[in-house]
Amino acid sequence: MNLVQIDEVAQSIIKQAGERIKASLHTQMTITEKSSPSDLVTNIDMETEQFFVSQVNQHFPTHRLLGEEGFGDTITDWDGYVWIVDPIDGTTNFINQQRNFCITVGIYKEGIGELGYIYQVMTGEMISATKGQGAFQNGKQLPKLATTQFEDSLIGVNASWVAPNRHIDHTKVAELVKRVRGTRSYGSAALEISYVVTGRLDAYFSMRLSAWDVAGGMVIAEEVGAICGTLGGGPFDLLKNQPFIIANPALFDEIITYYLTPQTT
Amino acid sequence: MNLVQIDEVAQSIIKQAGERIKASLHTQMTITEKSSPSDLVTNIDMETEQFFVSQVNQHFPTHRLLGEEGFGDTITDWDGYVWIVDPIDGTTNFINQQRNFCITVGIYKEGIGELGYIYQVMTGEMISATKGQGAFQNGKQLPKLATTQFEDSLIGVNASWVAPNRHIDHTKVAELVKRVRGTRSYGSAALEISYVVTGRLDAYFSMRLSAWDVAGGMVIAEEVGAICGTLGGGPFDLLKNQPFIIANPALFDEIITYYLTPQTT
Repeated sequence: MNLVQIDEVAQSIIKQAGERIKASLHTQMTITEKSSPSDLVTNIDMETEQFFVSQVNQHFPTHRLLGEEGFGDTITDWDGYVWIVDPIDGTTNFINQQRNFCITVGIYKEGIGELGYIYQVMTGEMISATKGQGAFQNGKQLPKLATTQFEDSLIGVNASWVAPNRHIDHTKVAELVKRVRGTRSYGSAALEISYVVTGRLDAYFSMRLSAWDVAGGMVIAEEVGAICGTLGGGPFDLLKNQPFIIANPALFDEIITYYLTPQTT
Repeated sequence: MNLVQIDEVAQSIIKQAGERIKASLHTQMTITEKSSPSDLVTNIDMETEQFFVSQVNQHFPTHRLLGEEGFGDTITDWDGYVWIVDPIDGTTNFINQQRNFCITVGIYKEGIGELGYIYQVMTGEMISATKGQGAFQNGKQLPKLATTQFEDSLIGVNASWVAPNRHIDHTKVAELVKRVRGTRSYGSAALEISYVVTGRLDAYFSMRLSAWDVAGGMVIAEEVGAICGTLGGGPFDLLKNQPFIIANPALFDEIITYYLTPQTT
C-alpha cells in the first residue's frame, strides 16, 4: 500500500474515532487520575485508543502502534511503520469543556515522519500533511508560514511556565510574555501546534511532552516551515518525555537562546 | 417596546453585525495602535460599532449607546436605556487568528442590566440572557453553575498576571496557578466570560477591563449564578477601567481574599 492509500485509510479511521468520541459525550464517563490530579484519563481515551489498535491491526497488520494509553506496542526501535497516536489530546478540556481537544496521529517509517494529523474533533478541522507533499486544512493546502516579528506575535504559553517551576527559568519566560503582542493557552498541545502551523500562533512550548503529543504535528510543521525542537534547539527525541518548542522560523532561535533556559538550581 | 421585543431586535442586529465582520475577512483591513502595541483597533471594529449606532438610533431613538470605539454617546449617567457595546472583543485574535473573537452587548435600564449577549462570531454561538428569565445558549436554557472545587477547576489566567505587574501580587497568582487543575487563556474577555457562564472555565480575571468588555457578560452571569466583582470583592463599576473577576460561587471569595491582592509597592 502506498502513502496515498495509507493516508486515505488513516483519515477515515481518525474521523470514525472522532464520531465515536462525540457520541460518547452523551454517556456517563469514568475519570481516573494518572500521574497527578491534573493528569487525567477517561474510559473514552482508552476505548478510542483500542479502536485505533484494532483498526490498524486490521488494515495494516505489519504496522506497530505507540499510544498514550498503552494499548499498542512497546516501541524501543523505529523499524518499519509505527503509528504514534494520542486518542484524546487535551483530556482535561474533554472532561471540563467538551471541546478544544484533538486526535493526533503521526505515521513514521524507519523513524521518519511520513504522515501527520491533528483533528479537532468538535469543529471537524483536520490538519494533515504528507512528507514532501505539503500540509492541508480540510484538504486545502496551507501556505508556508510568513515571517513575523516578536512585537506582533502571539505565543502559546501556559501560566505554569511563568510561575516558578523545575524546568526553566521562569523570570526569562516572564520577559518573553512582556515582549510579545500576547499569549494564549488552550490546554491541548496538538491544538496549539495546529495553531502554530496555521499561523494563528507564532510559537508554543511546553516542558513535558511525549511522542504522541507531537509526532503528528512535527510532520505538519516541516511542510509549512515551522521549526520544532527541544531546549537548546536540538531535535525532539520521540522516545523521551521532554521539553518541546515549535515556532515560526523568525522567532525560534531567539526563544531557544534567550528565553528558554534550563533551571540550574 | 417591551423586553422581549428589544431582545429580538438586539439579537438580529448582533447577528447582522457578525455577518458583516465575516464578510470583511476577505478584504484588506487597516490596523491602528491605540494605547500600546498590544491594544489594536481595525477599521472593521469601527465600522461595526457605527453599524450598531445607526441600528440602535433607527430602532430605538431614545436609547443611548456606549461603545468601545467612541462612536456612541458620552455616558456619565445611567438614565433610560443604554446599550453597552464591544463590536469586536478580542481584536488581536480577529487580526492574528480570524477566530476567537466576540460581539458583546449589555442593555441597561436606569443602570440595571436587563439584557446581555456574547456572540462568538465564527462559531455562531450566541449566549444571551434576560434579567430574571435565565440565560441561553443558542436559545437553549443554560443550567445554574454546579459547585466545584479548586483542585478540579480550570481558570482563565493570562500569563501576564503571573509575571511581575503593577496591579496584583504575581506570586499569589502563581500559587493559584499551581493549585488548580489547569489554566487557559483565550485573549477575549467576553469569550472567557462565556466560558465561565457555561461551566467550561470556573473563573476568569483580568486587571484592566471596561464596561464594554463585561456589561453583557454580567447580565448573563447573574442568571447562572456566577459572581462578578472587582479586587476586594465589591461590584465592578461600569464607569471605570478596573480589575474584573468572574467566578463560580464556590471559588469567588477565596480567589478575591487570598490570590488577588493589590500591589502595595
